[in-house]
Amino acid sequence: MNEPKILIRYKSHYENELKNSLSSVDSQAYSMLRYCMGWEDIKGDLIDSHSGKGLRPSLCLFVSDATGTRLHLAAKVATSIELIHNFSLVHDEIQDLDEMRHHRPTLWTIWGKGKSLIAGNLMQIAAHNTINLIDFGDESSKISISNMLSKACIQMLEGQNLDLLFEKKDSIELEDYLHMISLKTGALLRASLNLGAVLNVKDTNIKNAIDQAGKALGYAFQIRDDILGVWGTEDITGKPVGADIRRKKKSLPIVHAMGCDSGKYANQLKEIYSNADISDAGVDQVLEIMKTLKTREYAEGLTEKYLQSALISFKESKVNKLFQDDFQELIEFLATRNY
Amino acid sequence: MNEPKILIRYKSHYENELKNSLSSVDSQAYSMLRYCMGWEDIKGDLIDSHSGKGLRPSLCLFVSDATGTRLHLAAKVATSIELIHNFSLVHDEIQDLDEMRHHRPTLWTIWGKGKSLIAGNLMQIAAHNTINLIDFGDESSKISISNMLSKACIQMLEGQNLDLLFEKKDSIELEDYLHMISLKTGALLRASLNLGAVLNVKDTNIKNAIDQAGKALGYAFQIRDDILGVWGTEDITGKPVGADIRRKKKSLPIVHAMGCDSGKYANQLKEIYSNADISDAGVDQVLEIMKTLKTREYAEGLTEKYLQSALISFKESKVNKLFQDDFQELIEFLATRNY
Repeated sequence: MNEPKILIRYKSHYENELKNSLSSVDSQAYSMLRYCMGWEDIKGDLIDSHSGKGLRPSLCLFVSDATGTRLHLAAKVATSIELIHNFSLVHDEIQDLDEMRHHRPTLWTIWGKGKSLIAGNLMQIAAHNTINLIDFGDESSKISISNMLSKACIQMLEGQNLDLLFEKKDSIELEDYLHMISLKTGALLRASLNLGAVLNVKDTNIKNAIDQAGKALGYAFQIRDDILGVWGTEDITGKPVGADIRRKKKSLPIVHAMGCDSGKYANQLKEIYSNADISDAGVDQVLEIMKTLKTREYAEGLTEKYLQSALISFKESKVNKLFQDDFQELIEFLATRNY
Repeated sequence: MNEPKILIRYKSHYENELKNSLSSVDSQAYSMLRYCMGWEDIKGDLIDSHSGKGLRPSLCLFVSDATGTRLHLAAKVATSIELIHNFSLVHDEIQDLDEMRHHRPTLWTIWGKGKSLIAGNLMQIAAHNTINLIDFGDESSKISISNMLSKACIQMLEGQNLDLLFEKKDSIELEDYLHMISLKTGALLRASLNLGAVLNVKDTNIKNAIDQAGKALGYAFQIRDDILGVWGTEDITGKPVGADIRRKKKSLPIVHAMGCDSGKYANQLKEIYSNADISDAGVDQVLEIMKTLKTREYAEGLTEKYLQSALISFKESKVNKLFQDDFQELIEFLATRNY
């Protein structure tokens, strides 16, 4: 599948800004951040970029492009969003003991947990600092953007906290799961679109349309991630099949399997999940139950539902047809992405 | 020893603001923060406050009081500083596996490392948010205060990172140690004074005098901490004698003992430190060497030197004599504090 245009077109805009924001050479800590971003190897030598998709900064710049002309400012805001996203990845990897990201060893496996914790914190402050240093022409824009980003961060952290609380619970209702992902993943994605619009759009209806598109996109993105967490194949995602089952993540597939058919399989699943470690046979049993319940089809249907909803909302923003086509292409990519 | 007036007088100002900033009841995450601040027990019930000394917010309010009248604004800035300080404590405790703070179990021992990591992050964003929400009347004050706080945070994290880098090194020069603590501990303490002055003081000489007082105070505070880390008695600090030796911290006493008398004992110390764990006998040997080298006297002398330097600089700020007396009382307290 070809990379959608939205993910290509704005890369050079935000990558330059990102590099500027982490260019300090005075401190070893910034080397860790540049490694994390995929620009340098362990020794600090430049490498061919191994960055992620850049979905969030691309969305911010795309919305800014579609609604106005202040793309050079949006590039700095987009940078800030990508730094926040990476801050959360670095800390998540420490917490989940993830050893690989994009086929590269994670920060903590190289520099240890203590220094990686600090590197994550530094990444977060670098994000706020990036906003602080933007010259918007008027100070009130800066303050409202800073507020929006802080709010998204707080929601993201609250979602992460809920996610951990859910791990200890026997079963989770769909509604609670959706609330959790709307914070954990949705808040920053939604903010990415809203922050692209904020400098350009005054019309409340258009603002709302973009906000609703971002909200729906957040659900779809996390549910697709949850699908990959169970059925993603190892050579694509770097995680073994059933990874999220083994980790007892209360992701959508297990939420569905637990609650489906009036919880017909709930007791069996709870028994498997009650073991300290879930064996290979246990993982297979869970996968078998999900097959019977058509859990994967359900999850893919839900992804599709939210993606369509995002598309409809985005249409209401009444931006130029060319941008609408770009958004549709992105939506199609997100529906079937394998990484 | 009586608590100095500076640490008592401003408590009510910042404590109310602190409580406001962490009052959200929607999210379990904030309960962790209120527990951390010493206001609630594990169940979320109110308790008699078990807060820390509040040195940083008190210093901010004290300087604001001594140089002007905008104490209500300084109280919010002071709140933000205290939140940053607590964010760093929460993460440090996870990293160092500290089980107690002020005779209470630390956050991670109750809620686990994952949720405590998140709680620390939330505390940090709450700090930035507190600044965002202040109505200074002019937006540029907000931005310069936000910049000062971010800069102090970045320096603090760089210092923490250096501290961890030093743990892996055989020996550390005094100069490198002083640079590290000027960042790790000094940056936020120094910012506490500077942030108290920034709203009131325009005169560069006065600004510099306060800044230099803060810088010297930072050195003195950390060196006193290092003394307590080795010789502090368990019932006062909650840490056993020799705690920092056992943890192989490159704190001032070991920096001194390694380098003293042309490194006469360096090899012996390195051999003890080369063991994966330092035994009780090893700790006693190190303490014995420090006794021979008068390391404690040296460290106390250095504390005294920096405290006197802080006092002299503060005098140059030319604030009212009553405030100078208050500052002197604080200095005397810090020279001999046991906690």
